[in-house]
Amino acid sequence: MANDTQITIVGNLTGDVELRFTPNGAAVANFTIASTPRVFERSSGEWKEGETLFLRASVWREAAENVAETLRKGMRVIAQGNLKSRSYETKEGARRTSMELEVLEIGPSLRFASANVNRNQRSGGQQGGNYGNQQQGGFQQQSQAQPNTDPWTQNAGGNYNWNQQGGNDEEIPF
Amino acid sequence: MANDTQITIVGNLTGDVELRFTPNGAAVANFTIASTPRVFERSSGEWKEGETLFLRASVWREAAENVAETLRKGMRVIAQGNLKSRSYETKEGARRTSMELEVLEIGPSLRFASANVNRNQRSGGQQGGNYGNQQQGGFQQQSQAQPNTDPWTQNAGGNYNWNQQGGNDEEIPF
Amino acid sequence: MANDTQITIVGNLTGDVELRFTPNGAAVANFTIASTPRVFERSSGEWKEGETLFLRASVWREAAENVAETLRKGMRVIAQGNLKSRSYETKEGARRTSMELEVLEIGPSLRFASANVNRNQRSGGQQGGNYGNQQQGGFQQQSQAQPNTDPWTQNAGGNYNWNQQGGNDEEIPF
Amino acid sequence: MANDTQITIVGNLTGDVELRFTPNGAAVANFTIASTPRVFERSSGEWKEGETLFLRASVWREAAENVAETLRKGMRVIAQGNLKSRSYETKEGARRTSMELEVLEIGPSLRFASANVNRNQRSGGQQGGNYGNQQQGGFQQQSQAQPNTDPWTQNAGGNYNWNQQGGNDEEIPF
Repeated sequence: MANDTQITIVGNLTGDVELRFTPNGAAVANFTIASTPRVFERSSGEWKEGETLFLRASVWREAAENVAETLRKGMRVIAQGNLKSRSYETKEGARRTSMELEVLEIGPSLRFASANVNRNQRSGGQQGGNYGNQQQGGFQQQSQAQPNTDPWTQNAGGNYNWNQQGGNDEEIPF
Repeated sequence: MANDTQITIVGNLTGDVELRFTPNGAAVANFTIASTPRVFERSSGEWKEGETLFLRASVWREAAENVAETLRKGMRVIAQGNLKSRSYETKEGARRTSMELEVLEIGPSLRFASANVNRNQRSGGQQGGNYGNQQQGGFQQQSQAQPNTDPWTQNAGGNYNWNQQGGNDEEIPF
Repeated sequence: MANDTQITIVGNLTGDVELRFTPNGAAVANFTIASTPRVFERSSGEWKEGETLFLRASVWREAAENVAETLRKGMRVIAQGNLKSRSYETKEGARRTSMELEVLEIGPSLRFASANVNRNQRSGGQQGGNYGNQQQGGFQQQSQAQPNTDPWTQNAGGNYNWNQQGGNDEEIPF
Repeated sequence: MANDTQITIVGNLTGDVELRFTPNGAAVANFTIASTPRVFERSSGEWKEGETLFLRASVWREAAENVAETLRKGMRVIAQGNLKSRSYETKEGARRTSMELEVLEIGPSLRFASANVNRNQRSGGQQGGNYGNQQQGGFQQQSQAQPNTDPWTQNAGGNYNWNQQGGNDEEIPF
């Protein structure tokens, strides 16, 4: 209803993530995603690489800190967000427009990688704090996981809804 | 051009991932994603939870194994794929149709979690093998990473293209 | 932010549109879109038709009336909306779930057809009224169009924003 | 699988469609879509207009001719396609990159307009020919439509598949 132009892009980070904080303490992470399509060439009957699409992306608050902790140059990601137009002025005073991705949701792609996922232990709403970063394992350790300390399933009567913990979700400016 | 109905869904896994192998050794992982929209209620001026959408999903080969290693019940994921219709017969012999997500790309959401991402060390095309699962760290360990053993940047002259390593990519049946 | 599962589907109507009105006068149109993907068969090197996806769709208010006036069985459409889960009970008392498309935006596809588009002359917010349905032409008549009576450009200082006319837009229940 | 970055955009045409033909007779249509998101302003509790996104778009062959015949400045459209990067050189010799929409499917939006849809009578593969442009009516005339001359339902045993008529579909360069 808000008439946003939503897109999903899959590609690799061209560099490490830049993490900054606004004066009032909100985190914002910036990075660029490079996505290379494959084009079927009829004459040769083969797939070739098309022109790479570079899309500048930004993500805010808790997700920004998670992105900065998790993603690095070269990693393949899947990101969903709104395509936004941004006007700016060059050093020479010319007006330009660029397009950016305002990320709503992002994760490392599991196409060529696995991951150990660590659920945030932040108290709801606290920003910029320390991380308890408990080293909970992936698939292999699953059987030894003690139910009481498993942040994925405790409190989870059926379909645990993470949104309920996202107390500061309402304040995210997108 | 293939006229697929592409969708991106964000939600939580309702259970652990089921991993199986076809007779010729291809991995396939199945799981269900629960996505709960939020609806703005004009009368109260508040967001309420809408009806949860449950979508059965499947993913193949290398990605299937990564998904089984990485994802667990309750985790929030972002997944992109094609919406497919599947006909089946009930025990009573009635014909039914269900919709499923044929996953093209999936990852754990970084909205409320961080992750240590481990790039596959599989030799190209080998399925079902052991994993060297080198415990490369996330953000904190980044500065100590020894360039020679960093799978994210070695060989990476600029924008490393993971697709090039995906030797068996061509055989994926979607 | 509302965590809806947005999809775009392209396909053909399996029947004519069913138009009804709620007790308080709001129009709702229902129809089914059939979308047939094409699958590249490696063995034969040819494209084959995959299994058709049938998606039940609904659209509300002014758009519902426009859909009922415009679309007919067999027409190819492009539709964007949210994928929704709907629970219902069969005559035998069994609970079932189906998925439906809550249409946000829809139009006849111009891949194999052209169209004469007639902008609504409704006064803002009036539902179920008569239509002036002025037979404004397509491409060929363009040069003869009299500026004063052209509803596409009058009032349009630059980028005319149709949203401004959509006075009852705020009330649409999705 | 081709790793394209698919997007759906809804917006208004900023000008009339520019139709050209390649030396070998293929039609290409260019135009710009302006999409204005609405942003909910927490402080005032009201929706405001966000920055307009302008996206240059191109569409090929039969669809290009249909677009040129149908769409005009100011019309609201729904378009699906791939987001593409395009490098070019300015008159001063500077290299720039812009993003464009390679349209796969497009139609006039039925949110604030109805349409009379005219299925192409082109013989398959013929480009640039004359159009029989039969003035088949919309909803109101539906009941008087003579079955024999109704291009939407004749030959249509059940779900007529328009793709079958698109003989030159295979050659479309996207």
